[in-house]
Amino acid sequence: MNHRLVINTLGKTILLFAIALLLPLFVDIYYREGNINSFLYPIYGLLIIGLSLSLVKPKEKAFYAKEGFVIVALAWILLSLIGAVPFCISGTIPNFVDAVFETASGFSTTGATILTNIEAIPKSMMFWRALTHFIGGMGVLVFVLAILPSSSDGAMHVFRAEAPGPSVGKLVSKIKFTARILYLIYIIMTLVEMIMLLFGGMSLFDSVCHAMSTAGTGGFSNKNASIGAYNSLYIEMVIAVFMFLFGINFNIYYLVLIGKIKKIFKSEEFKIYLIILFIAIITIAINLIQQVGTFWNGLRYSFFQVASISSTTGFLTSEINVWPEYSKSVLLFLTICGACAGSTGGGIKIARLGILAKSTSAGITKTIRPRAVVYKKFDGELLTTEKVKNVRLYLCLWLAIIIVSTLILGLDKGGDLFTNISASITCISNVGPGFNKIASDFTCYSSVSKIVLAIDMLMGRLEIFPIIVLFAPSTWRK
Amino acid sequence: MNHRLVINTLGKTILLFAIALLLPLFVDIYYREGNINSFLYPIYGLLIIGLSLSLVKPKEKAFYAKEGFVIVALAWILLSLIGAVPFCISGTIPNFVDAVFETASGFSTTGATILTNIEAIPKSMMFWRALTHFIGGMGVLVFVLAILPSSSDGAMHVFRAEAPGPSVGKLVSKIKFTARILYLIYIIMTLVEMIMLLFGGMSLFDSVCHAMSTAGTGGFSNKNASIGAYNSLYIEMVIAVFMFLFGINFNIYYLVLIGKIKKIFKSEEFKIYLIILFIAIITIAINLIQQVGTFWNGLRYSFFQVASISSTTGFLTSEINVWPEYSKSVLLFLTICGACAGSTGGGIKIARLGILAKSTSAGITKTIRPRAVVYKKFDGELLTTEKVKNVRLYLCLWLAIIIVSTLILGLDKGGDLFTNISASITCISNVGPGFNKIASDFTCYSSVSKIVLAIDMLMGRLEIFPIIVLFAPSTWRK
Repeated sequence: MNHRLVINTLGKTILLFAIALLLPLFVDIYYREGNINSFLYPIYGLLIIGLSLSLVKPKEKAFYAKEGFVIVALAWILLSLIGAVPFCISGTIPNFVDAVFETASGFSTTGATILTNIEAIPKSMMFWRALTHFIGGMGVLVFVLAILPSSSDGAMHVFRAEAPGPSVGKLVSKIKFTARILYLIYIIMTLVEMIMLLFGGMSLFDSVCHAMSTAGTGGFSNKNASIGAYNSLYIEMVIAVFMFLFGINFNIYYLVLIGKIKKIFKSEEFKIYLIILFIAIITIAINLIQQVGTFWNGLRYSFFQVASISSTTGFLTSEINVWPEYSKSVLLFLTICGACAGSTGGGIKIARLGILAKSTSAGITKTIRPRAVVYKKFDGELLTTEKVKNVRLYLCLWLAIIIVSTLILGLDKGGDLFTNISASITCISNVGPGFNKIASDFTCYSSVSKIVLAIDMLMGRLEIFPIIVLFAPSTWRK
Repeated sequence: MNHRLVINTLGKTILLFAIALLLPLFVDIYYREGNINSFLYPIYGLLIIGLSLSLVKPKEKAFYAKEGFVIVALAWILLSLIGAVPFCISGTIPNFVDAVFETASGFSTTGATILTNIEAIPKSMMFWRALTHFIGGMGVLVFVLAILPSSSDGAMHVFRAEAPGPSVGKLVSKIKFTARILYLIYIIMTLVEMIMLLFGGMSLFDSVCHAMSTAGTGGFSNKNASIGAYNSLYIEMVIAVFMFLFGINFNIYYLVLIGKIKKIFKSEEFKIYLIILFIAIITIAINLIQQVGTFWNGLRYSFFQVASISSTTGFLTSEINVWPEYSKSVLLFLTICGACAGSTGGGIKIARLGILAKSTSAGITKTIRPRAVVYKKFDGELLTTEKVKNVRLYLCLWLAIIIVSTLILGLDKGGDLFTNISASITCISNVGPGFNKIASDFTCYSSVSKIVLAIDMLMGRLEIFPIIVLFAPSTWRK
């Protein structure tokens, strides 16, 4: 392990993070809410720690996958801990574990909250919550890569460790420029959404927060009733469409930018995603008719909620806890599936499901005709044994985490078994809301459970491996 | 596909099945319950069909894995349909779908029932229910292999398709003798349990039925309150111990028979099973203290229920629906794990979980040190890519079936989402009871849902592949 390199990169990340904290500080100053110290103190601390860590210069340039995983895991855990400080100092969330849960939920773009009255917290805190989504959505280290000089080897490993999906799509040959293009697309789309929300009569502040929250497919809202509070078809549709757009592989926008539109429809993942969403939206709309009167009403709720859950955002416009069982089953299924690889969404990812489905069908063929030679492709690439192995390994780890998490939550008197299963799944998939007791907030849980769920959220966002590599003894063995 | 061979083997199986139906017929005659025709008519029918099918002589001896799967799948589906007839004719279960559900539940050794007052049905029907467990436990085709002459190639394929677990352990070089030894161990253990239950004051009839039900790790009881009805510590302990014994790989008994006792403790699967059971029993006992007063009371319920669920039998001595959430989580976990390979129990099987755990750990090591050469063994055998691939493929199919099943059950107004998940898992794992609405019976579901669950049960018992191969178009393509 190249310790000095890890420490140095963390130092740089922390320094950048200090700059990010200036934004909510400005919001506080503008609205004169008197929480300047809540941000100033951590900024001072971060500057001191960040500067001292970045003084540790790496002696050797050795940079492998291992280092990439460790840097990403440490950065996200550190940021979740430090990002919680403003909530504590301001008294918005006095309990530190609660504040860490909220921050991990923010950075991991989960959107699960322990606040019961969101409308009562200071605007600077609302802004900070939304900003954590925005930062977490595209990735902390991707941002570091975008603006700092770094070796291309190391950059690739860091990028791979942080980017979502079974394989990493470099847009251009240099990682640095790939990161810049991604962040540019990300910021422009967020701005467009913000402007469209303004047209819908949403206040500037709410537009900025909800646009950032949508961009990261997070789900924190400034309203207790989430998007349902606006009771505006226009706002719902704008946010639903943008949730859908942020759930798509960003490579597609790059293809649009460079004019290769035909190639988009060759993407199998995109096609599968569209088909799943279409079936989910229509069948839920029909299933909802009895509750909401007409198919069109059903379609309104269904479209918004399917876009919200499948993109793993988690905004709500109605109480899904009382929806009919079929609709709830589909939402749970969408929670598991998640969004497309290379998007800001979470879950297992459609690309992985596609690979699982194709390799399973190949496996069945092999069972029937043991001597047959079966080739399968996904998104134009041959499904090698290695690729299938990795995706199946991912599924095993994903299942194991949900089982362990549910067993530990079982010791908590706060939740029942179904709530616990739902909480574990919604947290690892970075969706946010779940069923039964966690339909609106996670206050039913004890501190221990909240820590477990915060780890689930980070595991989900980083796609499991970085956190496991960080804690695996063999990583640290010489 | 060697159609003639498939038809011929099915014919023989059906003839044997007609003979099996004589047993409940005798019970009926003995107790003079007047349901002779309920058994006689199907026996006549079976004899005619069986004889005509077995007249179709195979022209060629070609017998591959495909034929093995198809024979096993067809035999089990046929038997579930035909075995339902006595229930219908006698009026015990007037609805045919209900009767098929009950029979599939019996043969698959699930033990899920649609009867609400079991004590009211005729004794011959109680006996028939228990007998389906006994037949299904060791396998229908294994019995056919044991007594009929057949080619060794074909026998191996049939044996592999029906025997539970990721790999098949032949005890002796000839499948026929392996099958005979297995059935002998099975029958002797059942007799011993029966005699021990008699000593506990259980009636002869109940002893026979419960011994057969335990042997197949089924779970049908003659009492509405299951084993709890006897309120006898002795009976509970006898049944608990035998449930545990029938959940172990039968190879172990063969090792005992031939005196190789040391080899038993080299079985990793056996050790993992013991460790899981020990932790489950102790932690549930502690978790139950608040509800049942003392640790020893907790231990009594915990020991019985853990033995019952982990062996996938499903007998009950208390209402698990009101158990604390941790205990329920553990029971759900045990339901998924299931028993040992080569036992009469269901679930994913401990051997598969062991292989999954080891290959996952190997996968993590590979992620950290990409150039490392990682060898893992399970139960003394090297975990080849092929073996790991098959087990992971099994997990994918297993998950897919549960998801599809839950989505279809969602359309039923009878069950809520958690009941539906629980029902899908308990049925594919062949356990029987579940949570919420299916804690004692499955009457909440519609006919369509019952058919789905019956398919889940058969899929679980036959370990998925035979049913899929039967319905895969490429099986029937030339």
